[in-house]
Amino acid sequence: VDESVSNANDEIAAENRRVFDENHILCVNLMGSPGSGKTTLIECLAPLIGCGNMAVIQGDLESDIDTKRMQALKIICHQINTHSGCHLNAKMLSDALSVLDLSGRKYLFIENVGNLVCPAKIYLGQHLNIVVSSTAEGHDKPLKYAIMFMDADLTIIAKSDLKDAVNFDSIEFLKALARVSRRCKTLMTSKKTPESFEPVRDYLIHERQHIFNEQHSH
Amino acid sequence: VDESVSNANDEIAAENRRVFDENHILCVNLMGSPGSGKTTLIECLAPLIGCGNMAVIQGDLESDIDTKRMQALKIICHQINTHSGCHLNAKMLSDALSVLDLSGRKYLFIENVGNLVCPAKIYLGQHLNIVVSSTAEGHDKPLKYAIMFMDADLTIIAKSDLKDAVNFDSIEFLKALARVSRRCKTLMTSKKTPESFEPVRDYLIHERQHIFNEQHSH
Repeated sequence: VDESVSNANDEIAAENRRVFDENHILCVNLMGSPGSGKTTLIECLAPLIGCGNMAVIQGDLESDIDTKRMQALKIICHQINTHSGCHLNAKMLSDALSVLDLSGRKYLFIENVGNLVCPAKIYLGQHLNIVVSSTAEGHDKPLKYAIMFMDADLTIIAKSDLKDAVNFDSIEFLKALARVSRRCKTLMTSKKTPESFEPVRDYLIHERQHIFNEQHSH
Repeated sequence: VDESVSNANDEIAAENRRVFDENHILCVNLMGSPGSGKTTLIECLAPLIGCGNMAVIQGDLESDIDTKRMQALKIICHQINTHSGCHLNAKMLSDALSVLDLSGRKYLFIENVGNLVCPAKIYLGQHLNIVVSSTAEGHDKPLKYAIMFMDADLTIIAKSDLKDAVNFDSIEFLKALARVSRRCKTLMTSKKTPESFEPVRDYLIHERQHIFNEQHSH
């Protein structure tokens, strides 16, 4: 049963991916613990990327709190409520895509359910996995939640302003991450220093150019 | 299939509970997001409760980092690694009980996998559900993760020393919690003020006396 469910999911995910590729929309699957800073990341990227260039899909068990935060910034957003569901799946994304107008958008951020385990296993059709891990969670997270970090393209160490208050050791975090992934990049951010999000914007621009190879496709 | 799995789990959980009841061991299922402060809670309770009065079962996908923290304090501890599993189940606990010597212990703390969704649904045989939610995670968590908070007996708002740095609003948290649970108690803690754990100790002593009604049973 599990395998056929997984195959059905991946077929829908491939169709989602086709939509993103045809429209040159970079799709990011944003994952992390509850309260790690996923929504704040999108809020802080918005002025750097331009609200008109982006769209957001918010995944949460309950509530439209995060969608309201997006709407306050005039970012196009669609809320998915999973109720007891611990992750989004490709069908939920597909349904959201059928009602979300993505014309002219360059970036789609899918904020997955706050969970450092379950979303890792489910392919939605995204180009990139970005994991947000706050300094307050501690530097041992990559070792404990290897399944999440091993498939990440980028890990964002969020709330760097709390680093000293919580005795977060960046070197230990990077060592732990290196033990589970050889390829995952890392960037540190804090909403108290908005310029700390500029390298994230640069990363996304670079990845989008690389993936769609825009210099040749136009 | 789901229902028979659930029934099988609950039968084993009932057997676990019988062991706790016969031996007057208060069993606490400790749940919360990754890095919320579950292990720190146990560390800070240890000197207040007495290491000889307690035992710990550590649940993590990978690593024995938390077991080592327990051993450093001479607390009896057994590690369960779930690998990709997003929660403990009654069978894992039963297997752990077969190797962990609980004689003379008054309290068993089960630190579940860091996850604010999945552990909520699985009964292990515990007397109490304690949810640890750090101020760094934000005050909206009870609304977003209602499934976890609605069955909690006690919510611990951890890392209260970060309250101002992260703009945590206690009133908003309590309002959100009240919307999903009428009975859940709350206590605030910070490892920077060890006396903040004394009310947690008092709560546990009171619950243990209440549950085993010790004044009559001896």
